[in-house]
Amino acid sequence: MSSIGLWLVGARGSVATTAITGLLALRARVIEPTGCVSALPRFSGAALPDWDSFRIGGHDIADLALDKRAELLTEAGVIPHRVFEAVRSGLSSVDSEIRPGYHPATHSGSQADAARRLADDIGDFAARHELEQVVVVNVSSTEPVFPSLPEHATLKALEAAMAVPGRTVLPPSSVSAYAALRAGCPFVDFTPSTGIRLPALEDLAAGQKLPYAGSDGKTGETLVRSTLAPMFTTRALTVRSWAGTNLLGGGDGLTLADAEHAGSKLASKGRGLASLLGGEVTAPLHIDNVPDLGEQKIAWDHVSFEGFLGARMSLQFTWTGYDSALAAPLVLDLARFTAAAHAAGSVGPLPALAFFFKDPIGTAEHRLAEQFAALTDWAESL
Amino acid sequence: MSSIGLWLVGARGSVATTAITGLLALRARVIEPTGCVSALPRFSGAALPDWDSFRIGGHDIADLALDKRAELLTEAGVIPHRVFEAVRSGLSSVDSEIRPGYHPATHSGSQADAARRLADDIGDFAARHELEQVVVVNVSSTEPVFPSLPEHATLKALEAAMAVPGRTVLPPSSVSAYAALRAGCPFVDFTPSTGIRLPALEDLAAGQKLPYAGSDGKTGETLVRSTLAPMFTTRALTVRSWAGTNLLGGGDGLTLADAEHAGSKLASKGRGLASLLGGEVTAPLHIDNVPDLGEQKIAWDHVSFEGFLGARMSLQFTWTGYDSALAAPLVLDLARFTAAAHAAGSVGPLPALAFFFKDPIGTAEHRLAEQFAALTDWAESL
Amino acid sequence: MSSIGLWLVGARGSVATTAITGLLALRARVIEPTGCVSALPRFSGAALPDWDSFRIGGHDIADLALDKRAELLTEAGVIPHRVFEAVRSGLSSVDSEIRPGYHPATHSGSQADAARRLADDIGDFAARHELEQVVVVNVSSTEPVFPSLPEHATLKALEAAMAVPGRTVLPPSSVSAYAALRAGCPFVDFTPSTGIRLPALEDLAAGQKLPYAGSDGKTGETLVRSTLAPMFTTRALTVRSWAGTNLLGGGDGLTLADAEHAGSKLASKGRGLASLLGGEVTAPLHIDNVPDLGEQKIAWDHVSFEGFLGARMSLQFTWTGYDSALAAPLVLDLARFTAAAHAAGSVGPLPALAFFFKDPIGTAEHRLAEQFAALTDWAESL
Amino acid sequence: MSSIGLWLVGARGSVATTAITGLLALRARVIEPTGCVSALPRFSGAALPDWDSFRIGGHDIADLALDKRAELLTEAGVIPHRVFEAVRSGLSSVDSEIRPGYHPATHSGSQADAARRLADDIGDFAARHELEQVVVVNVSSTEPVFPSLPEHATLKALEAAMAVPGRTVLPPSSVSAYAALRAGCPFVDFTPSTGIRLPALEDLAAGQKLPYAGSDGKTGETLVRSTLAPMFTTRALTVRSWAGTNLLGGGDGLTLADAEHAGSKLASKGRGLASLLGGEVTAPLHIDNVPDLGEQKIAWDHVSFEGFLGARMSLQFTWTGYDSALAAPLVLDLARFTAAAHAAGSVGPLPALAFFFKDPIGTAEHRLAEQFAALTDWAESL
Ligand SMILES: NC(=O)c1ccc[n+]([C@@H]2O[C@H](COP(=O)([O-])OP(=O)(O)OC[C@H]3O[C@@H](n4cnc5c(N)ncnc54)[C@H](O)[C@@H]3O)[C@@H](O)[C@H]2O)c1
Ligand SMILES: NC(=O)c1ccc[n+]([C@@H]2O[C@H](COP(=O)([O-])OP(=O)(O)OC[C@H]3O[C@@H](n4cnc5c(N)ncnc54)[C@H](O)[C@@H]3O)[C@@H](O)[C@H]2O)c1
Ligand SMILES: NC(=O)c1ccc[n+]([C@@H]2O[C@H](COP(=O)([O-])OP(=O)(O)OC[C@H]3O[C@@H](n4cnc5c(N)ncnc54)[C@H](O)[C@@H]3O)[C@@H](O)[C@H]2O)c1
Ligand SMILES: NC(=O)c1ccc[n+]([C@@H]2O[C@H](COP(=O)([O-])OP(=O)(O)OC[C@H]3O[C@@H](n4cnc5c(N)ncnc54)[C@H](O)[C@@H]3O)[C@@H](O)[C@H]2O)c1
Ligand code: NA
Ligand code: NA
Repeated sequence: MSSIGLWLVGARGSVATTAITGLLALRARVIEPTGCVSALPRFSGAALPDWDSFRIGGHDIADLALDKRAELLTEAGVIPHRVFEAVRSGLSSVDSEIRPGYHPATHSGSQADAARRLADDIGDFAARHELEQVVVVNVSSTEPVFPSLPEHATLKALEAAMAVPGRTVLPPSSVSAYAALRAGCPFVDFTPSTGIRLPALEDLAAGQKLPYAGSDGKTGETLVRSTLAPMFTTRALTVRSWAGTNLLGGGDGLTLADAEHAGSKLASKGRGLASLLGGEVTAPLHIDNVPDLGEQKIAWDHVSFEGFLGARMSLQFTWTGYDSALAAPLVLDLARFTAAAHAAGSVGPLPALAFFFKDPIGTAEHRLAEQFAALTDWAESL
Repeated sequence: MSSIGLWLVGARGSVATTAITGLLALRARVIEPTGCVSALPRFSGAALPDWDSFRIGGHDIADLALDKRAELLTEAGVIPHRVFEAVRSGLSSVDSEIRPGYHPATHSGSQADAARRLADDIGDFAARHELEQVVVVNVSSTEPVFPSLPEHATLKALEAAMAVPGRTVLPPSSVSAYAALRAGCPFVDFTPSTGIRLPALEDLAAGQKLPYAGSDGKTGETLVRSTLAPMFTTRALTVRSWAGTNLLGGGDGLTLADAEHAGSKLASKGRGLASLLGGEVTAPLHIDNVPDLGEQKIAWDHVSFEGFLGARMSLQFTWTGYDSALAAPLVLDLARFTAAAHAAGSVGPLPALAFFFKDPIGTAEHRLAEQFAALTDWAESL
Repeated sequence: MSSIGLWLVGARGSVATTAITGLLALRARVIEPTGCVSALPRFSGAALPDWDSFRIGGHDIADLALDKRAELLTEAGVIPHRVFEAVRSGLSSVDSEIRPGYHPATHSGSQADAARRLADDIGDFAARHELEQVVVVNVSSTEPVFPSLPEHATLKALEAAMAVPGRTVLPPSSVSAYAALRAGCPFVDFTPSTGIRLPALEDLAAGQKLPYAGSDGKTGETLVRSTLAPMFTTRALTVRSWAGTNLLGGGDGLTLADAEHAGSKLASKGRGLASLLGGEVTAPLHIDNVPDLGEQKIAWDHVSFEGFLGARMSLQFTWTGYDSALAAPLVLDLARFTAAAHAAGSVGPLPALAFFFKDPIGTAEHRLAEQFAALTDWAESL
Repeated sequence: MSSIGLWLVGARGSVATTAITGLLALRARVIEPTGCVSALPRFSGAALPDWDSFRIGGHDIADLALDKRAELLTEAGVIPHRVFEAVRSGLSSVDSEIRPGYHPATHSGSQADAARRLADDIGDFAARHELEQVVVVNVSSTEPVFPSLPEHATLKALEAAMAVPGRTVLPPSSVSAYAALRAGCPFVDFTPSTGIRLPALEDLAAGQKLPYAGSDGKTGETLVRSTLAPMFTTRALTVRSWAGTNLLGGGDGLTLADAEHAGSKLASKGRGLASLLGGEVTAPLHIDNVPDLGEQKIAWDHVSFEGFLGARMSLQFTWTGYDSALAAPLVLDLARFTAAAHAAGSVGPLPALAFFFKDPIGTAEHRLAEQFAALTDWAESL
């Protein structure tokens, strides 16, 4: 049977741990694929690799082993006890496939060296398990906004700068993207970080004949927004303001509370809303770190809109979700869809995967229903 | 310029009064067509009659003149003062086109007589104003559920029963539908009442080569539901329960508080939800009469759903709307689209208008985005 | 050390099981007394029996043993795993103190016989453990409304009727109250059932020189209402309507979905609101059984109110609670406070305990803050 | 009949305009005193001046006349049309009693000069109308936080600094407070600005034998918080986090959107919450300017709390209010209560008025019910 690698950058994080636990549990037939889009009946005809095809490895800069992380998520109520028991030993063996990630704070030498090492890790993994393909998915911590540099414009300029010892011309997510492409792997960015979104890296993907997708998994508030906004526009109702507050605990909450990091997340949310509504509206947005919520995320949105004869109306919603439980199945879906695209010879951005992202690469379509239609059309054509 | 009639059954009700006020105000250029779907740029190429083409008349069993009703709606905050002032005299002249409706309690003689009189009213209106077409839209009070009778099966059996003096073989909405068809007019049912939905009347429409559409305008809670439900299904999230409470004042609140009348409304809401979610879920639903809300309607929905690894999550929303302000522009849209369909020679149900209805005739499609796609495709083909 | 009995009617239900589990856990020092009012610092001076003083027994008509019931509540997330493990064997030994309850459907003979048997069970329990006092608390299923009968007026008439074989002159809750009083025990009604609220039984309590308290534990929506309502009245804001919807799973959800049973619950809620607001307002109220919520209860309330110059404003809240976790500590509090009252020689209703009840006996005070002030004053006087 | 002055600093703002309109309307008997605490039956025995006793004047730095401002508030839905018509001419005559306020940007000379001029304005007003007392209430725009200076410690040091031309030793609110006291008037601060809260000014009040009260009218979110928080503490439930988001339009929204100004508002809110809960909790708080909301204010709060056995529960509420309609009657109440206190010879802070304030002067009591009890006790003692 053909074997495919799934290489996770940030492999010991919440999303990764939940995804890996879920994959092992699906394989062990102890859970149903609830939340897995690719398991919907309408994709049963598509040429997607099955759950058993995947081998998992990854990078992380944290040391806490995968089974320990899963234990914490079990205590936090994300993973059921019986599922944890069923996959615990499987998690240990996956953990042995995780290699140290790249971080500028701990790295000495050039970014070219770092990228080479990362690419080698992926190559070794593929060789060791005789994998035909490896899909790299970035689920590492959201980075602060990285400045745009002239060296990002061309691959040549970029590689010259990367070769300079001590220079940090790329954020870690982009180093990972570069390494993935160099290792001949499609790259998927589940985070809002820069990742592959630089002209030089897009050129590299084209040169390597590789597909890629991103950015920023669409799981909570934005998922609902991309569902609701078209209701207003198709009904010719004028949205006057759309305010949002997100309360989150977990690792992500801590990272995003740091205003600098939240920057990239807020920006990707804002872009989506303006595009959905066909213009800017007053849209204050907050992300608060509320540790006692644990893995739960709560979002409140208040939409004020105007109808016929100037009638002032409102819609408000409260979303209470487990972010990792929402994100994890999408990571598995993206591995399946991207592997299939790669196998089918797709090159460049995969706009058909916009359904999964807050800030889709390769398309301006943010409406969820239209994104789903595009996904199903594309999947049938595979 | 070609002239088209819009004949409203329930012409002095909230929805009708708001629609008429709005049409006069649009014509007087004192408002924007916010909330009018047919005024969206994407329909600018469709062959739709413009606001100036319409002449208005109708039936009602209430005596309060249209301008008085509009004054009440102005006090209740639905119609702005300046708009009311601008159209007040126009409303009086429309009121002179309103004829007494049919009601079993006040009618003696056969239903055939009643229907003939209603049809004649429409015919006189058309003749008086040299109208090429008249679209009949039912916006009268929701009726209690009417029993299914054997005489509803064929036109012949129906007309025989209608001829019997004192027999009530049809509810008023169906008498209106029959009269409309006999007068050569397309019929649109904005209410959940029986209306045209009887085999005998569908046959009559076919025989008369007339199109028709319905049922039950989709304005508040159900509009949001038909938007949100596909989010869960396309994301493979399992909805476990979907509870709803509606608080409404206004005339409609009073009617629906009467449990018998609410029956037809609750049934049409329930049908939609099960169809949207692909099966039955626990879905308690309440409609409460809360007079102090006036024309406002408030709906609270709580959706409990399950994701990956059995994660239990929820979404709740509160909708605060003015029902008449939401419904009125749709009545105008339906007049335009139905007139165009009629002019184009369409016969039978118009499933492309499902976008406007809770319980669409001629299709099982309840998803808002898909309904909008169907509407735009169809409108382009006109 | 002095020993006190806590006799629970409905001892194998959710509330009872949670209360017993909690008491054992408090004694084992594996939990903090969060939610226990009597453990607040301000009551540290009051003469209340401590956690170690209590012995537990009770009646129930269900067979599922207490430790099994606790296991289900552990799976449902109400009891933490580690707590369950710590008290599991203690639960088994409490279960051996539970005797069959009285139910008209399974009883033959007179209600006098039934009451005698119940009283004997309590007496045996007291004797076996050499208890100085036993407090009886009713936490059994809510009963349907029971008709008022002339025999309820005097103890003599009541006992005559109870002696007639096959006659059902009292609902089970009142048979339990009668038995408790005859056994020389104070009676607390945590349910909305009739219980002690009959002139004949109040006379019996007076004759037996016993205190009693009730009715209907105030835990969710009503707790919030009794907190919020005084805000409106003291600020001179006029509440126009107060609508409520309760979604609940669990055993209680099933019982209350049955409209007949809900009757007593809705009535006790309604009484409180009118008293809080100083008059009737539009107040539609629903209790829906939503099994997937498990032990969770969700309540949504919408309050519409009017301020200066007629300004129309609203407050809405959503409460997400675990009913049993809210009720259980109050049951323990009531045992402590009632035992202290009894020891102090109180006779008749205990209005100072109104803080715990939706429909307090012996007072019309429903405002939470005032009730708390009354409780602390009274506790200091003990 | 005895005559009392009400001197409003910020007399042409939303709160002031609404208060003045309301007072004139009460006097004209065209409205009920809904929202006026002092008009509750329980205060009918207190020695409070009646509506007819008051003469109004004030300071403002804006030019838009009171009747024009009231017209805007009428369009915004805060003042009913018929009320506006009834008081329009009265508003014009009050407007003639408004004098230019003090603002550092437009003032040259010393703050002592400024204060003298302000005090003279009040004195002239009192003389012109032969008033026995004048109560000064600050309802001007919230100021940015003002630094603490050594000169604030004693009246002597303060007056020395105030005499220096060009020195800004006090924020405008404190200049107004100083002027009021010098003019022999009690001072009430309805805003979160510094106002009278400086040792030097408190000394001056004592020296002048004047009472004073503040700070920051409690109208929306904080009103609800001070009502709800005691429910958690008296029920021994542990609040884990209390998050809040405020959406506001209006003049106040604009001022508070400016982060510097929001500082004092957020601080006064935070102080209250910690005091209510008996300690700090995670409590992110936002104030967003959402112009399309006009005079409406919407607040969403999410409270996460823990109960027995560690149960995790939540309460969330959405408040939709008209801030000015909530604030205005309190301004009138404060005028009545403060005038009565003054007449009764009270000197120094009036902690009994804490019921009206977010950040009460002279007491740490934030619980609404306890504040109301204190108010009624005090009022009876007047
Ligand atoms: N959970 C969701 O619903 C969701 C949705 C959209 C996007 N995301 C994004 O997914 C990412 C992961 O979220 P999470 O909740 O799992 O966060 P997390 O903090 O639990 O995990 C992130 C992991 O990345 C690791 N990491 C950090 N820097 C790294 C580096 N340079 N190289 C390798 N590994 C590194 C961390 O050690 C950690 O184990 C975040 O960027 C988040 O914004 C999550
Ligand atoms: N407002 C909305 O958003 C909305 C949405 C969907 C459906 N609807 C439906 O539209 C209808 C109208 O709603 P409304 O708010 O205007 O109610 P309404 O009570 O204000 O008006 C109904 C009008 O129908 C008239 N009427 C009653 N019986 C009649 C008869 N036999 N013949 C002629 N006229 C008759 C009444 O006199 C009244 O003037 C209702 O059936 C309602 O369920 C409204
Ligand atoms: N949970 C709360 O917050 C709360 C609040 C107020 C009141 N209450 C009331 O407390 C009671 C218990 O609630 P619950 O959630 O534990 O319900 P439950 O259904 O889990 O338990 C009720 C128990 O009573 C037993 N029972 C029924 N009839 C009996 C009889 N005749 N004699 C002895 N036992 C009998 C049942 O077998 C069951 O074990 C209900 O009446 C409920 O309305 C609960
Ligand atoms: N509305 C409420 O519910 C509420 C509650 C608590 C506190 N407050 C406080 O009340 C104050 C007034 O609120 P508003 O909504 O009326 O605001 P607003 O902006 O409508 O009015 C403020 C008025 O103060 C005037 N002003 C500004 N600086 C001045 C100065 N130096 N001297 C004299 N006048 C000056 C302005 O010109 C304006 O007319 C604010 O400080 C607000 O924070 C309001
Ligand atoms: Na919730
Ligand atoms: Na609202």
